[in-house]
Amino acid sequence: MSTTTARAPRGRQFFANPGPTNIPDSILHAVAHVSIDFNDPAFLTVYDGCVAGLKRVLRTEQEVFLYTGSGHAAWEAALVNLFSPGDALLVIETGHFSESWGKMAKDLGLEVGTVAADWRRGVDFAALRAALAADTGHAIKAVCAVHNETATGMELPLTEVRAALDATGHPALLLADTISSLGSLDFRMDEWGVDVAVGGSQKGLMLPTGMSFTGVSARAMAAHAASRLPKSYFSWTNMLARRHRSFIGTVPTSLFYGLRESLRLLEEEGLDNVFARHARLAEAVRRCVRHWSGNDGPQLFCLSPDRFSNSVTAVLMPEGHDAEAVRRIALQSFNVSLGGGLGRLGGKVFRIGHLGDLNEPMILGTLASVEIALRLAGVPHSPGGVDAAIAWLAEAARAA
Amino acid sequence: MSTTTARAPRGRQFFANPGPTNIPDSILHAVAHVSIDFNDPAFLTVYDGCVAGLKRVLRTEQEVFLYTGSGHAAWEAALVNLFSPGDALLVIETGHFSESWGKMAKDLGLEVGTVAADWRRGVDFAALRAALAADTGHAIKAVCAVHNETATGMELPLTEVRAALDATGHPALLLADTISSLGSLDFRMDEWGVDVAVGGSQKGLMLPTGMSFTGVSARAMAAHAASRLPKSYFSWTNMLARRHRSFIGTVPTSLFYGLRESLRLLEEEGLDNVFARHARLAEAVRRCVRHWSGNDGPQLFCLSPDRFSNSVTAVLMPEGHDAEAVRRIALQSFNVSLGGGLGRLGGKVFRIGHLGDLNEPMILGTLASVEIALRLAGVPHSPGGVDAAIAWLAEAARAA
Amino acid sequence: MSTTTARAPRGRQFFANPGPTNIPDSILHAVAHVSIDFNDPAFLTVYDGCVAGLKRVLRTEQEVFLYTGSGHAAWEAALVNLFSPGDALLVIETGHFSESWGKMAKDLGLEVGTVAADWRRGVDFAALRAALAADTGHAIKAVCAVHNETATGMELPLTEVRAALDATGHPALLLADTISSLGSLDFRMDEWGVDVAVGGSQKGLMLPTGMSFTGVSARAMAAHAASRLPKSYFSWTNMLARRHRSFIGTVPTSLFYGLRESLRLLEEEGLDNVFARHARLAEAVRRCVRHWSGNDGPQLFCLSPDRFSNSVTAVLMPEGHDAEAVRRIALQSFNVSLGGGLGRLGGKVFRIGHLGDLNEPMILGTLASVEIALRLAGVPHSPGGVDAAIAWLAEAARAA
Amino acid sequence: MSTTTARAPRGRQFFANPGPTNIPDSILHAVAHVSIDFNDPAFLTVYDGCVAGLKRVLRTEQEVFLYTGSGHAAWEAALVNLFSPGDALLVIETGHFSESWGKMAKDLGLEVGTVAADWRRGVDFAALRAALAADTGHAIKAVCAVHNETATGMELPLTEVRAALDATGHPALLLADTISSLGSLDFRMDEWGVDVAVGGSQKGLMLPTGMSFTGVSARAMAAHAASRLPKSYFSWTNMLARRHRSFIGTVPTSLFYGLRESLRLLEEEGLDNVFARHARLAEAVRRCVRHWSGNDGPQLFCLSPDRFSNSVTAVLMPEGHDAEAVRRIALQSFNVSLGGGLGRLGGKVFRIGHLGDLNEPMILGTLASVEIALRLAGVPHSPGGVDAAIAWLAEAARAA
Repeated sequence: MSTTTARAPRGRQFFANPGPTNIPDSILHAVAHVSIDFNDPAFLTVYDGCVAGLKRVLRTEQEVFLYTGSGHAAWEAALVNLFSPGDALLVIETGHFSESWGKMAKDLGLEVGTVAADWRRGVDFAALRAALAADTGHAIKAVCAVHNETATGMELPLTEVRAALDATGHPALLLADTISSLGSLDFRMDEWGVDVAVGGSQKGLMLPTGMSFTGVSARAMAAHAASRLPKSYFSWTNMLARRHRSFIGTVPTSLFYGLRESLRLLEEEGLDNVFARHARLAEAVRRCVRHWSGNDGPQLFCLSPDRFSNSVTAVLMPEGHDAEAVRRIALQSFNVSLGGGLGRLGGKVFRIGHLGDLNEPMILGTLASVEIALRLAGVPHSPGGVDAAIAWLAEAARAA
Repeated sequence: MSTTTARAPRGRQFFANPGPTNIPDSILHAVAHVSIDFNDPAFLTVYDGCVAGLKRVLRTEQEVFLYTGSGHAAWEAALVNLFSPGDALLVIETGHFSESWGKMAKDLGLEVGTVAADWRRGVDFAALRAALAADTGHAIKAVCAVHNETATGMELPLTEVRAALDATGHPALLLADTISSLGSLDFRMDEWGVDVAVGGSQKGLMLPTGMSFTGVSARAMAAHAASRLPKSYFSWTNMLARRHRSFIGTVPTSLFYGLRESLRLLEEEGLDNVFARHARLAEAVRRCVRHWSGNDGPQLFCLSPDRFSNSVTAVLMPEGHDAEAVRRIALQSFNVSLGGGLGRLGGKVFRIGHLGDLNEPMILGTLASVEIALRLAGVPHSPGGVDAAIAWLAEAARAA
Repeated sequence: MSTTTARAPRGRQFFANPGPTNIPDSILHAVAHVSIDFNDPAFLTVYDGCVAGLKRVLRTEQEVFLYTGSGHAAWEAALVNLFSPGDALLVIETGHFSESWGKMAKDLGLEVGTVAADWRRGVDFAALRAALAADTGHAIKAVCAVHNETATGMELPLTEVRAALDATGHPALLLADTISSLGSLDFRMDEWGVDVAVGGSQKGLMLPTGMSFTGVSARAMAAHAASRLPKSYFSWTNMLARRHRSFIGTVPTSLFYGLRESLRLLEEEGLDNVFARHARLAEAVRRCVRHWSGNDGPQLFCLSPDRFSNSVTAVLMPEGHDAEAVRRIALQSFNVSLGGGLGRLGGKVFRIGHLGDLNEPMILGTLASVEIALRLAGVPHSPGGVDAAIAWLAEAARAA
Repeated sequence: MSTTTARAPRGRQFFANPGPTNIPDSILHAVAHVSIDFNDPAFLTVYDGCVAGLKRVLRTEQEVFLYTGSGHAAWEAALVNLFSPGDALLVIETGHFSESWGKMAKDLGLEVGTVAADWRRGVDFAALRAALAADTGHAIKAVCAVHNETATGMELPLTEVRAALDATGHPALLLADTISSLGSLDFRMDEWGVDVAVGGSQKGLMLPTGMSFTGVSARAMAAHAASRLPKSYFSWTNMLARRHRSFIGTVPTSLFYGLRESLRLLEEEGLDNVFARHARLAEAVRRCVRHWSGNDGPQLFCLSPDRFSNSVTAVLMPEGHDAEAVRRIALQSFNVSLGGGLGRLGGKVFRIGHLGDLNEPMILGTLASVEIALRLAGVPHSPGGVDAAIAWLAEAARAA
């Protein structure tokens, strides 16, 4: 039986996990850089160029602080630099990652309220407005919003969050997790009034895991001045005293050579074209899954078409079928790595990541392999999903 | 119109050209080796291990000579080391590469006869037997056979060639070009009575272009002793006087680090499993093309199912449609590199290479992209070819 | 004048900075690994092997926690996981890094006492014993000791620290920063009674900057249970709940492929041989500097031969001469990167790093280039320092 | 005893062999390129740029043909494309490589005369003029000159060869082997009237072994038209019929990505600066060896200062001492790879290569290690050679 087949030993793995993402060869080569003194003028030129480029991607002209750390490090940096023990935050529920960020805030001694939401439909912004309006004393210091919830494959329209704050005249800071959106979906820190944008290296920037960062508005810098949570490794004040204005301790130089190449690739393609490519490939995935869903097959987890994520699609299994079995077959028999269901979605969904360095044959090879895996796992579905993707991509190419 | 779309700028290129082939990352890294003295004992250990491994792949215990050169260098080495001006060779017609080898022999001053063959059906071995039987004076010094004709996607059964020589009691040497078969299709130099096996680095061995080699039987070494064609760079006699018993001049050390890794990969998977994988993926390609061929679509160039090549498939375009247009769209819009028609097949066929480091999603992504390219190019075909490939691969996985 | 010569544009940079360190090619290639799901069984095998190997290098059988972060991250992890606001620490003064660790503790709300020391002679252990003996109430929760002070080129004998704690019966935890000693100097966590050993990727482990870790004793785990400093990203309790028992958020998979190779290299050579090599090369540097010091030349900063560091040597400039001028010439004219003086030693010392992937010609090429730089900078010195190094290395090779 | 010490297992090897040479990391990364169709427009752009750049390095505006092969392949290509059986060549004796080229010509059926020369002093051009003048019938079709004799460390002034031809009005072609000079020593094909310039990838171009080439003058093309030696793989006529105007068979694409980077590096530094760097480092080597030669030590093999090679220095051992013992110690104890004596110089000389990607600390580390090896091998010498090199390089830096 194929489920016990040893992994296909040859050929490139198709990495359709929503994070980390495929790293282009040119970035891998750039990252394989010999050691260099992080104060060497030659490195400082690279460094400064990268920080400027990162601001262009974040679409901000305000501060950016960088950390040797994963995305969670940047989450923590945002919290410890802005708040004092007992401060109240309002987290917009989106799924696993909004829960995790909220839990981190509680770990750090903050009070966390949540605007509850149906995970398959996304938050009702009326509920957000109501919560803000009810906070007449402005106890809420910040609203935490995950721009793209990787666990459910849904985007949260940040402009709506901003609008809710503006409509209620609430002074809370707007903190946005852009970890799985930046460089894949449109994001505009300054234009959208985001006070802290949290991002990481290993998604749309196509780098290895290891560096994260926060864009920080002037309003957030003012809040930082009053913050009393203990901090050192992540302290913005400490960072501002250093040449690099970021990083406490050794600077991860090799990632900057990678970031330089990443920025070159993104800007060579053009950010708008990058977003359009993500949209095109994401739609191919969705058309394929929608086709499979006939005959009681797996379906799109997200029920709100205006919230579809263009960087990851969560696929909900039919009742009684285990997503992990599909993932195992895809990995062992076809060397295709899919994302699993996180937290309470474990076993119920699998996720197809489609962000970063990706093109048509990569996504089509993935979808076709998943279709075989569905067959092998005995999961009911309407065959021909790949044809739907083919038809869409032909149409999109014609229109180009 | 999509044919003018600039090449998809991101994502990995799908290299479905029949040669060179995809190079696994671990081989690329191995080849990126710093310089080393080719007489350094540390290198000699690597070198000797590679030569031994190459003999296992060739399935020979006789001599192997290696050249800094492409496959054509090994063709020439075979000719200049064995023959004298005016010697007669008999070339079995298979397609572009049998023609080229014959032309090279003429360039070098040899007499070349040909056993003519229908390129789409392959040689009739009765004709070969007749030609050998007619040569009662044994003027023919060697029969040249291209094991796998890359231009037509057809395999030539070498055991039938050997049988014809044996049946007629003809003493001609059997020279086999295994450039696009070795490491992809079953080949057994000693067991099959091949006197010279010509191979190169850039196909089934998954290395960059730059090294080629010949397995040489004891009978061929005897013929070498009498050969009078001028030679130096390729001279086996000169080589035998050197420590490496190969290479005139500097040894291409970096390719040996790659070859060591290549041999490790091939033997980790097991040669029989490598051949089975090639057969499985090739059959997926053929089922897809056969499906497309409905509705007056493109069809398999090869008309003899017992001669299908498992390393490359040539696809014949319907009358009035240009294969180059399909290739151009595949490359520019989807970053899929297909092989073109060679020589007289130019514009009439495109070729899908499926040899080397390849797996199911790679081949499925390629086929799906070609199906889109057929649509965009307005080539008639029966849509759903990928479904046929999916069905076959599911069946094959179940049987595994 | 040579000081304005543009940097020698060709040839490999000699990286004689004490950190990060030279990364061997095989590690660079290993780190250039494609993305992989950190829960993929294939990765988990690599991961578990690395954690086991890291314990062998730390010489511990207790817990190890790993962080995506630099060495400072591991410092902070040690502090926030063990202590509560207002807890008292005793820092042994060694130089810039003991000061920095103490400052970090203050940032985090801890009380920091210091056992003062002459930076050129190292701490007097009688003073440490006195401080511990005076703390009859055992207010001091931990002693913080930097095993190898990178800023001064001095080693702190940790067994003496342990002895002081034992002699006074003081229950304080022993925290050791091994960032620039681990994998270069002998270190034995369990045998020496170290409670928390702080280490990083970018020194003796020869990896890029980006990962750090702490070995943690059972006693320290007990202290952790009572700790009340806020923590999440660095929380050991949170980590223990995860499969990897380390890392909050995405695991930096690529560094593990590098670490696997690093451990292979260290264990292939043998840790004792690694330490002996560091000692041999360090002595060559010291003999060279001692020779230069004749004629009122630069001298060894460290005045206590029993405290010489075998991983870095700080060189004190003669009065009136700027260390930065020497560094600038070495870098611009000869592509040799030396370390500068840190903090209060800025301009007064330069530092020669000699840890990690290093051999005789690398150290000799560095020393010879520095000798030229001294000439060009007009710094008085006794020429012939390299001869002293040559003589020593010849003697050492004879004895081998 | 140190001569039996296992090779220093860590640190970078110092590759002071005169060929191949150190490959800069950026070239290694460039060469590690994925496969690409050699007719892909994206590759053709790279290809054409490389051919144009190669012409700039050769300083020619005439034809250049490239081969997948080592330098010996280009030697053979020059011979088979220009001559007919029995044609006479005149080889200027320089050492091992002039002998080898002559032997190759004999293997190929040519008549080879030699202008004899003292290997340590270089040819007397009066003897060359005499030989040409004596050939009143112009039987000599070509003069073969090795520009830089790697075996002896001597340069042959090609302008003197040209002058001898001009002075005698002899129409012979001038063939120059620039394998170990191109990109390291000044060479001007067109200006100097060289008809065929033979070069390879693995020396001054800093690439792996695997590609060689010939610059070909219009006069040589005319000679080619009349040539009757059999040829195919190396046939210029065949090449001119192809898109690439070079290469029979598959093009070694990966080397072109390396060559593009090599050309970028050479032109970024400026060819004149490259030559000046080689001259500066070569002089450091010579001053060191001259110092050693006191006390009956090893001495410069070359006795004619105007013929010193700036890319390699041969060092003659004192009577009764084996060069191989020194090489073995350098390699095993210090990971320094020196060149050995070739042919009749075996055991009598060792060679220090100083061409390609090299700087001061690399050459100083090499010399210092060799000085230790001399001590360990018990070879008499005057210690302090490295000081002489240091003094020279300081002087040179001051003058810069």
